Amino acid sequence: MGYQYWKYEQLNQLCNDAFQKFGFNADEAKTITDVLLLSDVYGIESHGMQRMYRYYKSIQKGMIDINAKGDVVFETPVSAVIDGHDGMGQVIGRKAMEMAIEKAKTTGIGMVVVRNSNHYGIAGYYAKLACEQGLIGLSCTNTNPIMVPTYGRTAMLGTNPIAVAMPAEPYPFFFDASTTVVTRGKLEVYNKAGKALHDGWALNKDGHPSNDAADVLGNIAAHKGGGIMPLGGSTEDTGSHKGYGWAMVCELFSSILSMGTTSDQTGKGGKGGICHGFMAINPGIFGDAEGIKAHLSAYLEALRNAPKADGQTRIYTHGEKEVEAQARLMAEGIPVNDNTMVEVLELCNYLNLDFSKYFGDYMPETAGSFKGNFY
Amino acid sequence: MGYQYWKYEQLNQLCNDAFQKFGFNADEAKTITDVLLLSDVYGIESHGMQRMYRYYKSIQKGMIDINAKGDVVFETPVSAVIDGHDGMGQVIGRKAMEMAIEKAKTTGIGMVVVRNSNHYGIAGYYAKLACEQGLIGLSCTNTNPIMVPTYGRTAMLGTNPIAVAMPAEPYPFFFDASTTVVTRGKLEVYNKAGKALHDGWALNKDGHPSNDAADVLGNIAAHKGGGIMPLGGSTEDTGSHKGYGWAMVCELFSSILSMGTTSDQTGKGGKGGICHGFMAINPGIFGDAEGIKAHLSAYLEALRNAPKADGQTRIYTHGEKEVEAQARLMAEGIPVNDNTMVEVLELCNYLNLDFSKYFGDYMPETAGSFKGNFY
Repeated sequence: MGYQYWKYEQLNQLCNDAFQKFGFNADEAKTITDVLLLSDVYGIESHGMQRMYRYYKSIQKGMIDINAKGDVVFETPVSAVIDGHDGMGQVIGRKAMEMAIEKAKTTGIGMVVVRNSNHYGIAGYYAKLACEQGLIGLSCTNTNPIMVPTYGRTAMLGTNPIAVAMPAEPYPFFFDASTTVVTRGKLEVYNKAGKALHDGWALNKDGHPSNDAADVLGNIAAHKGGGIMPLGGSTEDTGSHKGYGWAMVCELFSSILSMGTTSDQTGKGGKGGICHGFMAINPGIFGDAEGIKAHLSAYLEALRNAPKADGQTRIYTHGEKEVEAQARLMAEGIPVNDNTMVEVLELCNYLNLDFSKYFGDYMPETAGSFKGNFY
Repeated sequence: MGYQYWKYEQLNQLCNDAFQKFGFNADEAKTITDVLLLSDVYGIESHGMQRMYRYYKSIQKGMIDINAKGDVVFETPVSAVIDGHDGMGQVIGRKAMEMAIEKAKTTGIGMVVVRNSNHYGIAGYYAKLACEQGLIGLSCTNTNPIMVPTYGRTAMLGTNPIAVAMPAEPYPFFFDASTTVVTRGKLEVYNKAGKALHDGWALNKDGHPSNDAADVLGNIAAHKGGGIMPLGGSTEDTGSHKGYGWAMVCELFSSILSMGTTSDQTGKGGKGGICHGFMAINPGIFGDAEGIKAHLSAYLEALRNAPKADGQTRIYTHGEKEVEAQARLMAEGIPVNDNTMVEVLELCNYLNLDFSKYFGDYMPETAGSFKGNFY
């Protein structure tokens, strides 16, 4: 397998055009594109361009309703519940986080939960929206079932990422992590690359450890059993119950509080059923927001300057890698896997978009043994 | 090493008497005792009776000021900051969570952060206080430095536990976990028991993996380096950066927002400097609280009933083990390690309490190679 490097503007134009062709308005297409490409420029390949195909298939199947905007079905000064009516996750998600931000600016804290939505991209995008306004941002989402609970054999929870962002200098604290040991997207990337999975990541349909990405993804898609281990692996000695617990916290603040679909029941009857949670907190409700920001910045610097393990040269603080990746990829180009480019070509053909308008005379070929990611 | 089994009433009487002898009033002594013994009856030996000695030493050294009650130094309708003035963690912690609960009942959400406190026992106790009133409860605390950040060599964060509790039937969701792979208390228990640490738990002073509990605890106490790995181990492949990230979230909601002492700076100048965070959320701000509770209860039941891994007979939901342990230990007696009983005897002698009043003619002897837990 190989990678093509593209300028941000090329991918940005393609995505905006594609989502408008699907029927989203320009503002919505921009939001969806921003979420996708933020992932790519942050170096999180799993949730960027390589996810285009999944959205395409979900729209084509009618799982995503491009006309649904989301309705507020319950509201208090500090909270709201939104029914997404099967809309695009990024469109519903942005609306929800903007409500949480507005409430936080008024009351100090805003919490908004969403039901009946779809995959919303990286959780960190929404936490970052709040952070850009000087607030602490939190976001989480459940997903299709893929995490096998400790001592279980079938997936009962999603990758259930939780993101937390908070203003700091020279860059914010930005923590965005699935509560599985790795994401489904990571398995998809390994599958596309034809690489063996690391030990301690995944279970086969019988609940035994597996290194075979295609087999694990295929079993998950066919609901045959197996899946990804929680953060902490598959035994309590290594903290499996903790990763499983964090996944449950994600469910509480997405599917449970919204009276939505829990991860194990998502994707049934042709509906996504995905649920999200959003929270914004104004640090000013605890005193001097600037002082708090400086306090966090000093601690992050102390962490970066702490003694390193033998053979290591850096301790990273959360958000640092993303900022560095963004600077590098905006300058050098954004890598996209050849197999993803095959999917992009198919998408362009489907939408009657001229592939060469974005990518010149480059023509992708399916590389390696990749047979698709089982949507 | 061996264990003695005692009735709850015996330990309860001892603890209440001891803390009153130290100078706490009856209500405060009861709170401290309740926190300690809740840990023991939940089967969490690390944070129960075996921690008495640490509190005793901290009071004796003047690190804990028994007269400090905690002052509210900043407040809004949804938030407060408390300066603990070096008081007892359990006393300050209870006051803070009660404020958060009161605010949640009024506005829907209450967040209270605390600085200049001391070790407050299990984080779950405070989350449970909110849960008992029909609210979602969250609590976290930083601790003395013991977690080595990913790629680091010295402890820069605490065990930094976070607890989340939410009402459900037949028992609440109750998740209380350190963000390290294991707690310091667990290392203390292994040290008392003379057992080798599991792989993937701890690092020696050079940053290399170690199975020697006494060596690791000694190095930590002497600030020589090493410590416990984050949940997810010591490499990014197994998610080390995620455990480290959760520990950071704990710092944000304790030391950072309270403008208090970050974990790496705690315990200096004879002060604890420990910081806590508390949050209570009324599920009713998202609609029908009873419906939400039923929704969670159904999901927890589905998890317990899901297919089990080969060789496993149960999938536990969080809080289930604690409820079962409580029923069993209240009936059969609470196990206390012989080496802990040696510490209790020393404490009784120091306070002029009659050891035999609580424990009859039992007389403890130091067992095995235990040489203390390095306070």
